[in-house]
Amino acid sequence: MVKGTLFYEGKAKKLFRTNDSAVVWAEYLNQATALNGVKKDQINGKGELNNQITAYVFDFLKTKGINNHFIKRVSSTEQLIQSLAIIPLEVVVRNVAAGSFSKRLGIAEGKILDQPIIEFYYKDDSLDDPMVIDAHITYLGLASDQELEQLRQLALKINQALKELFDSIEIVLIDFKVEFGRQKDGTILLADEISPDTCRLWDKKTNEHLDKDIYRRDLGDIVPVYQEVLNRLEKRGK
Amino acid sequence: MVKGTLFYEGKAKKLFRTNDSAVVWAEYLNQATALNGVKKDQINGKGELNNQITAYVFDFLKTKGINNHFIKRVSSTEQLIQSLAIIPLEVVVRNVAAGSFSKRLGIAEGKILDQPIIEFYYKDDSLDDPMVIDAHITYLGLASDQELEQLRQLALKINQALKELFDSIEIVLIDFKVEFGRQKDGTILLADEISPDTCRLWDKKTNEHLDKDIYRRDLGDIVPVYQEVLNRLEKRGK
Repeated sequence: MVKGTLFYEGKAKKLFRTNDSAVVWAEYLNQATALNGVKKDQINGKGELNNQITAYVFDFLKTKGINNHFIKRVSSTEQLIQSLAIIPLEVVVRNVAAGSFSKRLGIAEGKILDQPIIEFYYKDDSLDDPMVIDAHITYLGLASDQELEQLRQLALKINQALKELFDSIEIVLIDFKVEFGRQKDGTILLADEISPDTCRLWDKKTNEHLDKDIYRRDLGDIVPVYQEVLNRLEKRGK
Repeated sequence: MVKGTLFYEGKAKKLFRTNDSAVVWAEYLNQATALNGVKKDQINGKGELNNQITAYVFDFLKTKGINNHFIKRVSSTEQLIQSLAIIPLEVVVRNVAAGSFSKRLGIAEGKILDQPIIEFYYKDDSLDDPMVIDAHITYLGLASDQELEQLRQLALKINQALKELFDSIEIVLIDFKVEFGRQKDGTILLADEISPDTCRLWDKKTNEHLDKDIYRRDLGDIVPVYQEVLNRLEKRGK
């Protein structure tokens, strides 16, 4: 596999073509951003940690029957993934009130939701990734009603698997964000990453944040925290 | 009917009890507000105009089989309405992109939507009336899934009737906001007001704003504009 030209540079990843049109070479960056890029820092070690954590999680999800774009890790900061047409929606699943959900609805952080709540956000930096309803999504042509139903089912299945995974390493999965993409035949596949950048993870005993809120809220250094998540995963084994 | 004690003071209306527990005495105020009350002014004549316009529209909706809380107008600024437990949701129906919809999704004002889009906003000034999805609404216990379905059906029926009404007076109904309340037996009824404060109304020929955007956007004096809407309705007859 040969790393080709850069075709996408996001806040946390660069994507390169390869000599196989079905395969993309992803490079995890050390850049951390929050508030839609208003807060931005280089954090040595972050790219490596998220690359490893995502690789672990995506492999785990495959064992649970959840197909995803991950192929294999090729270096400490790089992984090969399937080429997909990304659906420009952030699909958020919430098990416990936190973050924008708490702010929007005036609900205390930490309140357990009686059932998972799924939200969709339109991935558009110029609009600040607004929350959208189904009617907005279909009007904008981002996904069909049938696809939205599929995304919801997949999101719930992923939530179930991730809750189980994190529970086994003494972590509560508060909420997370996933993205999906379409294969050429229209099949929808889990894409992007799943890491402490994209999940809220609270230590089961202490309720300590083991996620990007450490960075967002200036609570300290994220590297030892992300490392702790990776250590627990690795200790757990495959 | 005897006007009793004040029990609610909103931005545009005061509500009083009456000697009949099933009837509320509503007084339309001259106060205009925008940006969740950040912009506020006294505008002589506004209360009178909205009281008359709402009375006309609610009577019209009754002729279209849309039951509502309006009983009768009792003075230039006052009307009697049925006592309801208001559902704290603003139900917005959009036929043409404008306002927050255009800003949120980056769609030019004036773009006609291929079908009406219904949005729900949680009526809570301290939270700035956030847009909410069904899962938020049921989690907060504001309405059940069955009630949401009913609200959507009612909103579309009201939209159809209002489009017809305004079309007959050379006005395009861009969007509008309605509120609903529950009778003691749980029956849902259209409540609040329908006026240039709660609708976007554009002149069919000139596209001029005949609504509160005149005030929100500092485009001039709303009184002659609201008067124009009332004149056209009165000219139309019952």
